[in-house]
Amino acid sequence: MSETYQSALIVGAGSGLSASLARVFTKAGMTVTLAARSAAKLDEFVQETGSKAFNCDAAKRDEVEKLFTDLDTTQLTPDVVVYNASYRIRGPFIDLDPVEVEKSLRITAYGAFLVAQAATRRMLSRKRGAIFFTGASASVKGYAQSAPFALGKFALRGLAQSMARELSPQGIHVAHFVIDGGIRSVRRAEPPNAPDSLLDPDAIAQSYLHVLQQPRSAWTQEIELRPWVERF
Amino acid sequence: MSETYQSALIVGAGSGLSASLARVFTKAGMTVTLAARSAAKLDEFVQETGSKAFNCDAAKRDEVEKLFTDLDTTQLTPDVVVYNASYRIRGPFIDLDPVEVEKSLRITAYGAFLVAQAATRRMLSRKRGAIFFTGASASVKGYAQSAPFALGKFALRGLAQSMARELSPQGIHVAHFVIDGGIRSVRRAEPPNAPDSLLDPDAIAQSYLHVLQQPRSAWTQEIELRPWVERF
Amino acid sequence: MSETYQSALIVGAGSGLSASLARVFTKAGMTVTLAARSAAKLDEFVQETGSKAFNCDAAKRDEVEKLFTDLDTTQLTPDVVVYNASYRIRGPFIDLDPVEVEKSLRITAYGAFLVAQAATRRMLSRKRGAIFFTGASASVKGYAQSAPFALGKFALRGLAQSMARELSPQGIHVAHFVIDGGIRSVRRAEPPNAPDSLLDPDAIAQSYLHVLQQPRSAWTQEIELRPWVERF
Amino acid sequence: MSETYQSALIVGAGSGLSASLARVFTKAGMTVTLAARSAAKLDEFVQETGSKAFNCDAAKRDEVEKLFTDLDTTQLTPDVVVYNASYRIRGPFIDLDPVEVEKSLRITAYGAFLVAQAATRRMLSRKRGAIFFTGASASVKGYAQSAPFALGKFALRGLAQSMARELSPQGIHVAHFVIDGGIRSVRRAEPPNAPDSLLDPDAIAQSYLHVLQQPRSAWTQEIELRPWVERF
Repeated sequence: MSETYQSALIVGAGSGLSASLARVFTKAGMTVTLAARSAAKLDEFVQETGSKAFNCDAAKRDEVEKLFTDLDTTQLTPDVVVYNASYRIRGPFIDLDPVEVEKSLRITAYGAFLVAQAATRRMLSRKRGAIFFTGASASVKGYAQSAPFALGKFALRGLAQSMARELSPQGIHVAHFVIDGGIRSVRRAEPPNAPDSLLDPDAIAQSYLHVLQQPRSAWTQEIELRPWVERF
Repeated sequence: MSETYQSALIVGAGSGLSASLARVFTKAGMTVTLAARSAAKLDEFVQETGSKAFNCDAAKRDEVEKLFTDLDTTQLTPDVVVYNASYRIRGPFIDLDPVEVEKSLRITAYGAFLVAQAATRRMLSRKRGAIFFTGASASVKGYAQSAPFALGKFALRGLAQSMARELSPQGIHVAHFVIDGGIRSVRRAEPPNAPDSLLDPDAIAQSYLHVLQQPRSAWTQEIELRPWVERF
Repeated sequence: MSETYQSALIVGAGSGLSASLARVFTKAGMTVTLAARSAAKLDEFVQETGSKAFNCDAAKRDEVEKLFTDLDTTQLTPDVVVYNASYRIRGPFIDLDPVEVEKSLRITAYGAFLVAQAATRRMLSRKRGAIFFTGASASVKGYAQSAPFALGKFALRGLAQSMARELSPQGIHVAHFVIDGGIRSVRRAEPPNAPDSLLDPDAIAQSYLHVLQQPRSAWTQEIELRPWVERF
Repeated sequence: MSETYQSALIVGAGSGLSASLARVFTKAGMTVTLAARSAAKLDEFVQETGSKAFNCDAAKRDEVEKLFTDLDTTQLTPDVVVYNASYRIRGPFIDLDPVEVEKSLRITAYGAFLVAQAATRRMLSRKRGAIFFTGASASVKGYAQSAPFALGKFALRGLAQSMARELSPQGIHVAHFVIDGGIRSVRRAEPPNAPDSLLDPDAIAQSYLHVLQQPRSAWTQEIELRPWVERF
């Protein structure tokens, strides 16, 4: 009963989530391609799984165009895209650097638009595909001293909703994941006295895979994921 | 990595969803018990799966107490509960029968409280369990000519949120499912020219099972499910 | 440009908000009637303003019917109704008394339905009127150890939305006020070192009056009010 | 009891709302300054009220800096700012021009950040001021064929929430207005058979003034405004 896809593109290298997604999607039988501003960061993972990695600044239109053209020519045109890139700075509102705020909006939201549009153009002809966006608690609640992330993640959610209303009836599954909590990683270990207080990226990836496999009669547009002890 | 549970109680017989849940949970290795105002309606399903079915009006405190005592004595104390009961009437606001409005609130929301409280008492000692609530589009949007369902389903969502904030850190997974669309059933066939325009109850049940299996580092508290062509 | 109304009924005596509303509405030229489970509590205020006060348990259908019949016969049929009654208990989920939970749902939400239906019946013939509901932070967020209030206040919000979608186009202004914070009262004084950290009931009442006066081309259905220092 | 302010800056010339705000704020005793990409459009209004108008592309950092410096030197440093600028294009998702999408994000959301930051720097020293943002139905619901507006208006709402959580306790009133419906204007007349089906900009302005006058114990952070017959 579940949907199957062949080729997944994962954009953004943050938090180890992309690596977990690649691992889980590969195991489920998909060919996985990674794209990040610095593909070199993905080397270890590429060697482990045999995935291809591309350099791409998703906030730059020509780089996104080139990425998809390269994927087309190597028969890797994706029927699944996960947009996992984001950029944030924090600090008192009056001290925020406008250049950094613009960068946050561009990487977190505008790049998502660019990638989603390129992907949609390729999916629409087949009336089939899935485009997933990784949100955060900041997608639904604007926190103090965090205006840039609120700007970017709220915008991303608006994009996802608008796309879902337009593209779901055309066969493209558009979903938005509200990841509420820190993600466990090499750099961010869990406090020993607070087990499972950080999201396991493999567990997140399993939920992405589940939503990907949903048949079109029961698609998820939005889903929350948070650790059991996270306050919300 | 996924959570496993032993014994599931499903309350409410509506829409074929309970039957699908029972089938899917049974297949996943759980013992399933059903409870409904009229357990006789579940006969066919009980014969098919060997599940037990109990008569229980979930809006009545003594019947809920008796149900759980009976489950205790038959070693069927649930570590999973799905509350799937609801009652609705529709019509112009001024024509609504107050008795029916009260019934809607009682079955849709108050019964959920009674069942959840009885279940929580048994789960808390083990610091483990899952309580899932079936919501609707009416849980997040109050529709015209549908005040009773808005009252009941909004209340149910408030209950789920309050329980999640209190009980998640104590090991109980509380989740709320926003089912947005009609559910396919024997009585409600799909228009031939609108494939997959009604939610397949088996597909819904697969999403419940997925959420049930999530490890506690990445629990879903709320998730939407709707057909690809549903307007929202 | 602003709307004018003649006769306001305010239900519920809690927190001093009803008294402030009565004062502000009276000053704006309306005849104000109060109804509460214990009208005697309103004595002082009745003497001050000359308002009439009625005993009415809003959760009881016959008492609500009697109230509106009494208002009809004394030419006090309201074209404005504010539902301000609520009931709550707090505590660990497993310790909540089901009788109290039911009472919370009945007074906070079901009574609102009864009053709103009786009022709507009278307003619809004139295609004119306003029905306002007093919500709380619990209307939009279910707090731990507060399931009864979450049940009641979420339900009330669902009622308000459903009514607004149906009745606004028929000339009845239905609004829901999310009061997020404690309300200053005789019993609840403000900490001296936290000025204006509790909502001034007169300030709340001014916002109710503003919404009441809105012309129908720009009606508010929902509005939040909270102290400047309140966390949210 | 109500707050009073001296000097209001209104940014953006769209829909006649800015003109109505200027009129209503002037009548309430404030000095009003207008800023728009093309101040010439405001000529008629400037002659009518004696307000000053400045050319300013709010999406450009240097122009925003110059605007505020000019206001400082002419003793017009605002204690009230309304951000009313926005830009939108509509169309099938795959046909959207990325340059226009970026422009929509920049004018609708990034410009709001630039203006708000410049204003906040001046308000914080006095611990007093008000910054209001004009949202739309697109702020809370992403519509099909309208991704650019969803991106921009969602982002704006995120900015408003983040600022409110940080700056309200420092004395700055940050509010977000969800304007749900078309605004009546010279270019957009109302259908004769649908009276009051478009928002009267003067009525909107009255609600902005009310929120502006709220004492800090009962501040509105978000409020909806829509015509009585608008579907939502």
